[in-house]
Amino acid sequence: MSKKQSGNEDSIAELGLLRQIRRRAGAMPLASALSLGIGDDCALLDPGRGKEIAVTTDLSIDGRHFRLDWHPPEVIGHRALARGLSDLAAMGARPLAAFISLGVPKQLTVTDKSSPTWVSRFYDGLVTLAEQYDTPLAGGDLAESPVALADIVLVGAVRRGDALLRSGARAGDGLYVTGWLGGSAAGLEKLARLDRTSQRRPGRILTTGRPANGVLQRHFYPQPRIEQGDWLVRHGMATAAIDLSDGLSTDLAHLCEESGVTAEVEADAIPVALSANLEQALHGGEDYELLFTAPKHQQVPHVMAGVPVTRIGRIGGVKNRPQITLLAPDGSAKPLEPRGWQHFTQRRPFDGGATAGPE
Amino acid sequence: MSKKQSGNEDSIAELGLLRQIRRRAGAMPLASALSLGIGDDCALLDPGRGKEIAVTTDLSIDGRHFRLDWHPPEVIGHRALARGLSDLAAMGARPLAAFISLGVPKQLTVTDKSSPTWVSRFYDGLVTLAEQYDTPLAGGDLAESPVALADIVLVGAVRRGDALLRSGARAGDGLYVTGWLGGSAAGLEKLARLDRTSQRRPGRILTTGRPANGVLQRHFYPQPRIEQGDWLVRHGMATAAIDLSDGLSTDLAHLCEESGVTAEVEADAIPVALSANLEQALHGGEDYELLFTAPKHQQVPHVMAGVPVTRIGRIGGVKNRPQITLLAPDGSAKPLEPRGWQHFTQRRPFDGGATAGPE
Repeated sequence: MSKKQSGNEDSIAELGLLRQIRRRAGAMPLASALSLGIGDDCALLDPGRGKEIAVTTDLSIDGRHFRLDWHPPEVIGHRALARGLSDLAAMGARPLAAFISLGVPKQLTVTDKSSPTWVSRFYDGLVTLAEQYDTPLAGGDLAESPVALADIVLVGAVRRGDALLRSGARAGDGLYVTGWLGGSAAGLEKLARLDRTSQRRPGRILTTGRPANGVLQRHFYPQPRIEQGDWLVRHGMATAAIDLSDGLSTDLAHLCEESGVTAEVEADAIPVALSANLEQALHGGEDYELLFTAPKHQQVPHVMAGVPVTRIGRIGGVKNRPQITLLAPDGSAKPLEPRGWQHFTQRRPFDGGATAGPE
Repeated sequence: MSKKQSGNEDSIAELGLLRQIRRRAGAMPLASALSLGIGDDCALLDPGRGKEIAVTTDLSIDGRHFRLDWHPPEVIGHRALARGLSDLAAMGARPLAAFISLGVPKQLTVTDKSSPTWVSRFYDGLVTLAEQYDTPLAGGDLAESPVALADIVLVGAVRRGDALLRSGARAGDGLYVTGWLGGSAAGLEKLARLDRTSQRRPGRILTTGRPANGVLQRHFYPQPRIEQGDWLVRHGMATAAIDLSDGLSTDLAHLCEESGVTAEVEADAIPVALSANLEQALHGGEDYELLFTAPKHQQVPHVMAGVPVTRIGRIGGVKNRPQITLLAPDGSAKPLEPRGWQHFTQRRPFDGGATAGPE
């Protein structure tokens, strides 16, 4: 990265921003893995002996992955980091460091002495979650951009050979999820409804901090399952894993494709979030729960590092058809098509009105 | 990363793009460090024993770091990767893998059977340079965006404790640069002139492949100094290093600030590129040469891994003032102010007309 720290006094705005980031990052306890943080050409990390490095990048753009008029800046920062941490969780890796490239319109950097800037609030949301998972913010980049965007990079470590892959599922394996599904999609639909019905300040429905509203909580502040992924690795219990970023139907299709298997899902076994319905649990994304498989006779606990685990179905052979079958409570079976979020098509079956959505 | 590889047949465009990226990446020899590439939640890298990991991220945005109407897509891909590789070079690290997050307007992804898409040509430029430095493209992200942007992530490895830092320069050290300076700025000015004078297709001056035009070569296809950084590490010769991304005056100020020293630069010692002038060599960025310091009596070779090395000055104590002094051939001395590119100010002294520029 090319951090600007020169003595050029004309560039107060940027230097102020970068000092702020550096201070926030420096205030975190320096994890032992981070040998060198912000301020040089690269950050230096020491993964430790016998470890492999896991790396993931995720790009979030205003209007596609969030909306400036729907999501408070703290929420956008939280969600950007949660997305990256969730990818590490799905490999069973623990975070070593995060890097954030932020592009913002100039007005979001303007300092008003009475209140923090949008950028400052974005970092607040990101760093608050980072601290929760001992993840130092080790660098990144900042640029003016006509559209607000954030690219998050997570670097993690996992013992060599132990990473949970998408490709390890075998016929007969049980199929499990952590937590509850559909809550994020339900929150997004709620936002869309608020936007349509808001009389007072159309297009500016929510710009304040943490909402008390429970329906929005899972959409605004999803919790990455780092501890649960780590638990699975330490107990050697999972044959394959993926995180639910695009929706159960789509992410399970990814897992089946990479493993060369099929799957059966029991509709009434799915842990639907309190605020959500089955459609949202099947196709809504951004719950950031873990979907994993374990051998047929493996005893999988009902609670894993404090989060419930539910058996929702089983893996079948590759010759079965269709790729995914949904079993209804009455015993009838129908194909479950992947209907999660896809770029460049904007097809979002559970919410035709929303343009922000999972990736 | 959340790669879309589901069987949803409606999302042909994106799947086509991702397959294309995966194929391009898969065609490269799998470096031993890359245990798992595109297709899972994270990439897995094995840095090897006794190594530290160097990580750098750099964001490039249309209108600020490149211009779609000035830079051919291959050039934008090459320059994005060169920027990241150059950061590794400045630490003396060798690349393990690259990750690219790309956001593009929909029309840049449209397939015309008679010619490759913009996105395809972008990857061509990036992968061609990646192959040159044995750098597998191990992942990334792709999203529709109202503005074209590319965030490049490089992960490299360097023997623990051997990385070249900005902070190691001491009073009395010699100051050196690789290669020639100002060539990229001269190329950028040439582009700005072409844009102003182009009658035929204003705003569309260059959209074809590699130009024969020598003046544009250094701006379009800068070469990261990976081998030279590696050479410095292996010979334990440098006390500090930085890459010239923002311009000599600005990057030397960074090095002085991080090391707590001052510097004297001899104007007539600076290796000015054939197409450039002294102002461009002092303040133009994006040459991606290395600036480094070595102990006073160290014998530094005149050629390092095939590239000339020039002594351009020396490091002084922190109590000297100003931070950087420029010594003219007539013996007169004047302060050298950092005047490289700064975000959010758009001050670009050597080319008031250009909006694209180094970061």
